[in-house]
Amino acid sequence: MNKDERLVKQIIPKSVDFSRWYTEIIRKAELADYAPIRGMMVIRPYGFAIWENISYLLDKRIKESGHSNAYFPLFIPESYLQKETEHLEGFSPEVAWVTHGGKEELEEKLAVRPTSEAIIGNMYSKWIKSWRDLPVLINQWANIIRWEKVTRPFLRTTEFLWQEGHTAHETYEEAQEETLMILSMYKEFVESELAIPVISGKKTEREKFAGALETYAIEALMSDGKSLQMGTSHNLGQHFSKVFNIRFEDRDQKLQYVWQSSWGMSTRLIGALIMSHGDDSGLIFPPRIAPIQVVIIPISVGNWKENVLPVAQNIESELKYIGVRVNLDAREEFTPGWKFSEWEMRGVPLRLEIGPRDIKGNHAVSVRRDTMDKEIISLDSLKQDVAEILKRIQKSMLEKALRFQLENTHEVQKFEDFKSVLDSKKGLIKAFWCGKQACEEKIKDETMGTIRVIPFKKDKEKAVGNCLFCGEKSDVLVYFARAY
Amino acid sequence: MNKDERLVKQIIPKSVDFSRWYTEIIRKAELADYAPIRGMMVIRPYGFAIWENISYLLDKRIKESGHSNAYFPLFIPESYLQKETEHLEGFSPEVAWVTHGGKEELEEKLAVRPTSEAIIGNMYSKWIKSWRDLPVLINQWANIIRWEKVTRPFLRTTEFLWQEGHTAHETYEEAQEETLMILSMYKEFVESELAIPVISGKKTEREKFAGALETYAIEALMSDGKSLQMGTSHNLGQHFSKVFNIRFEDRDQKLQYVWQSSWGMSTRLIGALIMSHGDDSGLIFPPRIAPIQVVIIPISVGNWKENVLPVAQNIESELKYIGVRVNLDAREEFTPGWKFSEWEMRGVPLRLEIGPRDIKGNHAVSVRRDTMDKEIISLDSLKQDVAEILKRIQKSMLEKALRFQLENTHEVQKFEDFKSVLDSKKGLIKAFWCGKQACEEKIKDETMGTIRVIPFKKDKEKAVGNCLFCGEKSDVLVYFARAY
Repeated sequence: MNKDERLVKQIIPKSVDFSRWYTEIIRKAELADYAPIRGMMVIRPYGFAIWENISYLLDKRIKESGHSNAYFPLFIPESYLQKETEHLEGFSPEVAWVTHGGKEELEEKLAVRPTSEAIIGNMYSKWIKSWRDLPVLINQWANIIRWEKVTRPFLRTTEFLWQEGHTAHETYEEAQEETLMILSMYKEFVESELAIPVISGKKTEREKFAGALETYAIEALMSDGKSLQMGTSHNLGQHFSKVFNIRFEDRDQKLQYVWQSSWGMSTRLIGALIMSHGDDSGLIFPPRIAPIQVVIIPISVGNWKENVLPVAQNIESELKYIGVRVNLDAREEFTPGWKFSEWEMRGVPLRLEIGPRDIKGNHAVSVRRDTMDKEIISLDSLKQDVAEILKRIQKSMLEKALRFQLENTHEVQKFEDFKSVLDSKKGLIKAFWCGKQACEEKIKDETMGTIRVIPFKKDKEKAVGNCLFCGEKSDVLVYFARAY
Repeated sequence: MNKDERLVKQIIPKSVDFSRWYTEIIRKAELADYAPIRGMMVIRPYGFAIWENISYLLDKRIKESGHSNAYFPLFIPESYLQKETEHLEGFSPEVAWVTHGGKEELEEKLAVRPTSEAIIGNMYSKWIKSWRDLPVLINQWANIIRWEKVTRPFLRTTEFLWQEGHTAHETYEEAQEETLMILSMYKEFVESELAIPVISGKKTEREKFAGALETYAIEALMSDGKSLQMGTSHNLGQHFSKVFNIRFEDRDQKLQYVWQSSWGMSTRLIGALIMSHGDDSGLIFPPRIAPIQVVIIPISVGNWKENVLPVAQNIESELKYIGVRVNLDAREEFTPGWKFSEWEMRGVPLRLEIGPRDIKGNHAVSVRRDTMDKEIISLDSLKQDVAEILKRIQKSMLEKALRFQLENTHEVQKFEDFKSVLDSKKGLIKAFWCGKQACEEKIKDETMGTIRVIPFKKDKEKAVGNCLFCGEKSDVLVYFARAY
């Protein structure tokens, strides 16, 4: 839709100012509001319903792959965080500290969890004794605090919600298998439920999790051409098991340290949904995650309350019956036109309009939010048609996002080209890299472009080229981008 | 079951030492473990599955009665807590304070939420403008921190999980209606899902929530004769709306302060389940809440892996198919007898035993955890029979608990009798009370008995008596007990 044709006027068009659009739409659509504490937000019911849908669909996958949920303490004693040096250095600038309980000053200050490896490691050392106790496959849904300097609703907030998986295994191979299984579960989840295509692979040493052996991630290209890290899965090796003394008697009665993984996705996914799919008129939610999938708007002319409303109510209960999240907007203080614009802005995937003329014709008008395509659908087949259209919307939103990703992925050889592509076209850039941190850092300093992932090599892939920065020969092709 | 006949030997019998039994069973059954932070616990997968079942069933009721979930910040600025004096005085001895973020000392210290009225009140003042915005019906699932002096797993812990509802209304009457609707929803939930009968009514001034107009509660009698508060619902009046300036333009265009309610239930419910239903052998969970409803134990004799195991696996998938939470314990390192005792201790409502002889007879043996009744059930009707037995267990557990409550509710007139009943028989005591706080306090000081609730009067109830302590005439009959 052209920005001048749009009905929605309350927000600045995305194409004019992406960053302002992002913060305006979050507040106008009542997804979230700023809280009176630095960097914190309130997730309002319409935004929280998205998180509930995400949690429900992701939790199902986590359980089906053999994990159980548990709950560990919010507070972590300072001495526990200090045990793993890399981990502490990575997180200490971001930790909020509790120093007083009631009227008393505490003997040891407590970190409000920035992540839970340390406290969970401590518990695992008590619970794990033998190879029979392994694998331990536990997940936690929790709130996390990180004292961030620059914050942005959903993308980077002092407090956020997430799930964090923490597993322990007999061997390196099993921990690695788990790490990669979760990564592909995340990819499948984000693509099929959120309709966001992702690239996946390994992080560089510089970008990996503080305390991990290897970090893997899924990243997606947002519609402003910047990349967003959406989920990470870490092979922790034996770093934490050695400092927390998590040992087991193996099958040969020898004491061994366990091999661990940890992995997480957060409310940041809501930011990704907004930035991937939104347009000048506001939000567009994929049906599988949308808080409201269908809004019914009765055309309020003549004696619509006698003629139209009962039919609309009937449609509402029919759709509810087949499990569609539906809202009949029968408010009298607003015109149909106002309602069209309101629900467009709020991203409801499908609108059903029904007026006196439609009822005479035994049909309703459906309007897709993603394409604005109108369709006349018979009241007789309405349930099936709506279910069908919702499936089509989900599919075509993913296809559209994938097209966008492909169109905005560029391959470059030379650093000069790299810089100009990053400035003009943005998007993802595939380029060779020699593997040295010095090159990685210089590229970052000069361009603000970072290595997002080192993708997995396909079986027969043997591409060779020259490092973008130093020109050294390399067979490592990586994805660069400016990132959130 | 007599304590000498029990199979379970790992824990002290409940009838010998209730308090030790309680803490032992929690750890042996792996419901929870102590965390290395004062008063904090880890809820392990088996315990957390109970909380997941509780949340799922309670959240459904909360949503069906028109409420939506949202999420508010973990931290509350000190100045917000200070706005409502009563509220601050009530909570300040229990608040954990964050004073540092990263390397910096904060200008204003932040409370880790002991409850969320203050932060939510602040947000409501921004969101509510007109009577059209009312009622606001929001619920939050969250973690809560209270710096308690004496703690006990599930019953009183520094951190716990709960739901807290916060509503705003146009009139006192609507807020009161909401407060009482929630109270009866809580009662129905606890009785039908947790199989715990409760008494309900109003709290005295002394026992009410800091900042409320009135507090209502449900309480249940635990099997050691002490009472446990299981849920509270507060009519907040205009206390918070006045200090947080939550005003709306009413139907006559006049500015009014909203009327509010708040209400909550927590992981304490898990403590109630343990203490209400457990016996000398350990836990007994009602089927609707049990993490595992049925455990199948193959009798491992002869070539059981060829003969018995496939049948057991078949039963497992049949039961899964009809939605039963079932676990086939096919571990080879343990004997059937050990498994019987293990799953008895862990409170699984129904055990199915199946051995070579059962297979010849085309049946299995079912053993109810609550009564230890054995029944031979045909493999042909197994699904239906199991579903039927689970329903019967749920029903008879509630009946048994109700009988216990009635048998342990005593009416007394004289303070001497009150003291001796409280010492010898324990349980709930119904007695008249003049309404004066002085009497209430003296009774407490002398006996440790407190007024649990002032029950609602039935329509024609006009009982009159004399205050237990001062002898003054009174028509207020209340429930006393020693309480957790």
